[in-house]
Amino acid sequence: MSADNSHHLEFDTADVLSVRQAVRAGAYRGYTAGFAKECVQANICILPRVYAEDFLLYCQRNPKPCPLIARSDIGDPKLPQLGKDIDIRSDVPRYHVFRDGVLVDEVHDISSLWRDDLVTFAMGCSFSFENALVEAGLPLRFLDRNEVAGVYETNIDTEAAGAFHAKLVVTMRPFLASDAIRAIQITSRFPNVHGAPVHLGDPNLIGVDLSRRYRNVGSGELLDNEVPLFWACGLTPQIAVANARPSFCITHAPSSMLVTDRLNAGLASF
Amino acid sequence: MSADNSHHLEFDTADVLSVRQAVRAGAYRGYTAGFAKECVQANICILPRVYAEDFLLYCQRNPKPCPLIARSDIGDPKLPQLGKDIDIRSDVPRYHVFRDGVLVDEVHDISSLWRDDLVTFAMGCSFSFENALVEAGLPLRFLDRNEVAGVYETNIDTEAAGAFHAKLVVTMRPFLASDAIRAIQITSRFPNVHGAPVHLGDPNLIGVDLSRRYRNVGSGELLDNEVPLFWACGLTPQIAVANARPSFCITHAPSSMLVTDRLNAGLASF
Repeated sequence: MSADNSHHLEFDTADVLSVRQAVRAGAYRGYTAGFAKECVQANICILPRVYAEDFLLYCQRNPKPCPLIARSDIGDPKLPQLGKDIDIRSDVPRYHVFRDGVLVDEVHDISSLWRDDLVTFAMGCSFSFENALVEAGLPLRFLDRNEVAGVYETNIDTEAAGAFHAKLVVTMRPFLASDAIRAIQITSRFPNVHGAPVHLGDPNLIGVDLSRRYRNVGSGELLDNEVPLFWACGLTPQIAVANARPSFCITHAPSSMLVTDRLNAGLASF
Repeated sequence: MSADNSHHLEFDTADVLSVRQAVRAGAYRGYTAGFAKECVQANICILPRVYAEDFLLYCQRNPKPCPLIARSDIGDPKLPQLGKDIDIRSDVPRYHVFRDGVLVDEVHDISSLWRDDLVTFAMGCSFSFENALVEAGLPLRFLDRNEVAGVYETNIDTEAAGAFHAKLVVTMRPFLASDAIRAIQITSRFPNVHGAPVHLGDPNLIGVDLSRRYRNVGSGELLDNEVPLFWACGLTPQIAVANARPSFCITHAPSSMLVTDRLNAGLASF
């Protein structure tokens, strides 16, 4: 994950406006992990209007994997809830373009693809709660290795809406027991970025084999004295969209997110 | 635990003042579990003034096993913080009297034993958070069988103060993983009644063998698909007192507590 971020960059990666400016100008096309750490980064899914109601319902029915923090007006590329100047056509470093559910292109600007019937969905992501865990002094070893948390597909069905359906995908983070209790307390404060874990302990109970990561993403390391905690993952709605095979869809590319003006701390529920 | 409570009782067990009146009159000398469910029940420890500062410090250093909710003035049998009319000499159904650390008597009134140098310590107890768990729909099977949670001595040292020292004693309650996460959230709201668990998962990591309960107290049942959660237990300060061997000490007898006017819900921190 670090390769792109380790370059010498011509902008202030700690400043949210500098980051968005660089992305918008096409000067930065990499990963956003670690940028503007106090700000919420968002998973993006852009769908034609005809799919928008069902996808909104899918998010409503599955808030833990799909913590929706903004939905644009139809055809409007702005997301004023997340930042006054945001233009979703240019403010994500890399986009994936799908036609009939198949990835057909990776681009850095979608202005030429924009249509009057497109609707943007922005969802909170685990970077926010990982930041809160690190600030509380809890170790996340995979971050030190510039990896992400291990990703797993469970045997748990999410609640379908229209053509959108998927098995719940989760991320696993290992902790000593006392840290696990703290991690549950801390992430419970952030329902808009996946919130509390959905499972802890025996992975088999949710159909997970820790040695078999989804698309080999992330670290599955678990030490003998650790408890695995499992959080709902933002890959779930991406798979639901793939399963629905919409005629057209644009998402952010993995780990290249929209960096918003919303503060992580501002999402805390208490 | 139920034997005494199953008798036909001449007072309203749901009403805190009726309960205290019956206890004070000597008309009730049994267990208090399930009485005045919305009210905080307190563990009681009465010590001569010469031990009071060290015991207060022991509570301050070990708030999870010793969640102090009131300390009386020296020689004063009242506890106005917990109820206007409370007289600690008569308002506990059964008392244990210790001399030089040894249990020498069980009595129903301590008026004749009262001294001008005695200090009362009242600590929150797990009945309060068990009530919150049950109200949230979480199953506590041992309650259905009129048992209490399994009690275990760990290999974890509490922080000593003066002569007061003890290994941490815990109670174990088993849950399905998703309920375990809810149980951590709910009990985190109640720091004055032991708060969040101190451990979860592998009992060996805290020196516990689930088949070996402390003095055989409570239920150690754990099903295959359950995670054990461990909370700090109010027996810990009782053992610390036994270890300190004060010349004189009075406590409540197990499960026969002081029923206070404080509301469980009033202790919730958010």
